[in-house]
Amino acid sequence: MPAETSGLSRRRLLLGGAAAGAGAAITLGAERTGLLPGSMAAASVDTAGVNGARIVPFHGAHQAGVTSTPGAHATYLAFDLLPATDRERLRAWLRLLTDDAARITQGRGALADLEPELAVRPAGLTATFGVGREAVVRAGADAPAWLGPLPAFPEIDALEDRWSHGDLMVLLHGDDPTSISHLARMILRDSRSFATLRWRQTGFRRAYGSDASGTTMRNLFGQVDGSRNPRPGDDAFAAAVWAGDEAPAWLRGGTSLVLRRIAMDLEGWDEVGREGREAAVGRRLADGAPLTGGSERDEVDLDATGPNGFTVINPAAHAARAHVADPAQGIVRIGYSYDDPVEAGAVDGEGRPAVSNTGLLFGSWQRDVDAQYVPMQERLAQADLLNTWTTPIGSGVWAIPPGCEEGGFVGETLFT
Amino acid sequence: MPAETSGLSRRRLLLGGAAAGAGAAITLGAERTGLLPGSMAAASVDTAGVNGARIVPFHGAHQAGVTSTPGAHATYLAFDLLPATDRERLRAWLRLLTDDAARITQGRGALADLEPELAVRPAGLTATFGVGREAVVRAGADAPAWLGPLPAFPEIDALEDRWSHGDLMVLLHGDDPTSISHLARMILRDSRSFATLRWRQTGFRRAYGSDASGTTMRNLFGQVDGSRNPRPGDDAFAAAVWAGDEAPAWLRGGTSLVLRRIAMDLEGWDEVGREGREAAVGRRLADGAPLTGGSERDEVDLDATGPNGFTVINPAAHAARAHVADPAQGIVRIGYSYDDPVEAGAVDGEGRPAVSNTGLLFGSWQRDVDAQYVPMQERLAQADLLNTWTTPIGSGVWAIPPGCEEGGFVGETLFT
Repeated sequence: MPAETSGLSRRRLLLGGAAAGAGAAITLGAERTGLLPGSMAAASVDTAGVNGARIVPFHGAHQAGVTSTPGAHATYLAFDLLPATDRERLRAWLRLLTDDAARITQGRGALADLEPELAVRPAGLTATFGVGREAVVRAGADAPAWLGPLPAFPEIDALEDRWSHGDLMVLLHGDDPTSISHLARMILRDSRSFATLRWRQTGFRRAYGSDASGTTMRNLFGQVDGSRNPRPGDDAFAAAVWAGDEAPAWLRGGTSLVLRRIAMDLEGWDEVGREGREAAVGRRLADGAPLTGGSERDEVDLDATGPNGFTVINPAAHAARAHVADPAQGIVRIGYSYDDPVEAGAVDGEGRPAVSNTGLLFGSWQRDVDAQYVPMQERLAQADLLNTWTTPIGSGVWAIPPGCEEGGFVGETLFT
Repeated sequence: MPAETSGLSRRRLLLGGAAAGAGAAITLGAERTGLLPGSMAAASVDTAGVNGARIVPFHGAHQAGVTSTPGAHATYLAFDLLPATDRERLRAWLRLLTDDAARITQGRGALADLEPELAVRPAGLTATFGVGREAVVRAGADAPAWLGPLPAFPEIDALEDRWSHGDLMVLLHGDDPTSISHLARMILRDSRSFATLRWRQTGFRRAYGSDASGTTMRNLFGQVDGSRNPRPGDDAFAAAVWAGDEAPAWLRGGTSLVLRRIAMDLEGWDEVGREGREAAVGRRLADGAPLTGGSERDEVDLDATGPNGFTVINPAAHAARAHVADPAQGIVRIGYSYDDPVEAGAVDGEGRPAVSNTGLLFGSWQRDVDAQYVPMQERLAQADLLNTWTTPIGSGVWAIPPGCEEGGFVGETLFT
């Protein structure tokens, strides 16, 4: 895993260069002072600005958005290729988008960027590119068998085309919504001649500054979400994520992304008490620990029984159905909540005008969708107590090529 | 202005209480370490979590969302009163919403809150309530003359009802989107018997951690936006904002909010060079300083002429048209960018499928809408070079009652 903070960003902060600006070393604003132990306040460092100059290196063996901790905000863009976008034009487009991303994630404006000021505080911004089957075909490369729509899950799916699929996917994540918005705009600008925008989805998790490092996110049901996730750098992460010799050569060192847009019925969830919620999930709401005890990252014990002779964790609880004994055979989840404006004419489960448009952008990395994602999703579709309050309304699968070195571009291995 | 950090939050951080949690005093995560001068990293304080426990006191002479620095994220909710919501029911509703806000902004769950864990990291969360004319009438109080729709500005307006008006407005702002989402949800839950949701709008500015304290925001045109804004605590702020003896007694110590949803044509703006952009605004893009020189917060010089004999600042530039000589007669702006999913069927200025749904939630505080906001808006509507790329698509005006003390509720002065 590449180190997430470069010498450049540190230098910028310490020397007050272009990114950190003249204000970087001023004393704490009155609003912040009270929060810090006296010794830190006396240090006269403005922690309010300390994250803006954080730079995640773009180049490397893997795409940086996979290897880095998910930022507080994410924007997904999906494009459909124009008919005229043949192999050479696809290559030119990928080169152009890579250039935008390599510059803006490093705090520099894009080429011909008229608002470079919006790029100088990337706050950990990353860009990750994925290709759908059609893009692989146009490149003339072999597509893995799993690259295409997931099998249907008729028990649960209510998929809408407008939130599904796409020939190219770009995931931008970082801690600052303004820098994400700016990079998204540059990508849209430089895509006009090659593709049309199919959809755009935006989500969030706890802001930078809100949680201690390493805290697992909570979704809008209040659940701790992703407790058993291997973390970048773990052996289990590498084993679960990176495509190896079984994959086409162009994909080795890459992975795959499954993205599901899952609507969450918060009004229905309101009618379930804490005990019912914990039973549905199989974990304690307070800290995410399994109902069989221990702490958050401990293994769930699916065999432990309670005084009544039943298992403590309901076999249909989410944690039981999603359970994979060997993390290397599992998936790595990257989830973002969404809470969008209510759409015109939308109704809730009882036919009343909707008051929320809320859910989860469920993403997962895995080296093989058919081997890792699909079996788990089949178990969840057949029986998961959470299904009562969740509805998948969007779905997509993309191959995530490996990273590139300076001068190269993401996706170049498709053309060799 | 109330101090924004209470002893409670400081205590929580230092003692590792409910809000700060066990992780508050752990060492810096590897990703953050590189950003801090060595002396700070050695202090073993996790700055990643330092903002989560920040609490803005709810009670006081003024509503805290007006007196505090705008947080990184904002959600506006607007409601229409149900026919059955008479004076007594309106009072009960305001009391209920005040209770939700007073608890959740202080890091405690609402009454009957099933996800109190989502409330423990408010990150500066505030809630500000405003009433439209219908709510004032139902309360049996006198409405100020300006309380109602703005006069039409036919030169520029393309208002949509679905983004305009509302009998009650709630503005939630703070640094964490998850805590805002949770409070919005509790407010929606507790409003079902009294009102219907009319609309919901969400915006952002630079994340906490990205900018040094006191940095003026940039909108998505890349402009520094709000340079001449008086700041909470300035004399000019108090003079411009707080309603005094000229207002109905129930509004004294309160103010008004104008909210305009302004669509921004980023694709059109792309075709304008840096020089043209600076001429349209009357300020330098790099730092927001007037084109007549000086630094960002200096006065624009509308009389200064250049070598060609024309004024340096075009009389139709935004800064010229918006200029008010006496800040006490001006407005205080609170702006948030929005960058929402593209709506189904939306087209851009040239009839092509839209690739962005982007703009500004322009808010302003002023003690008298007719005296302060309307004359400025008339000047801008008649001639503002920026009008080429901006279109107001939503509009609303609300009276913002004063704050309340513990045991009271916002809006109580309407019922005396």
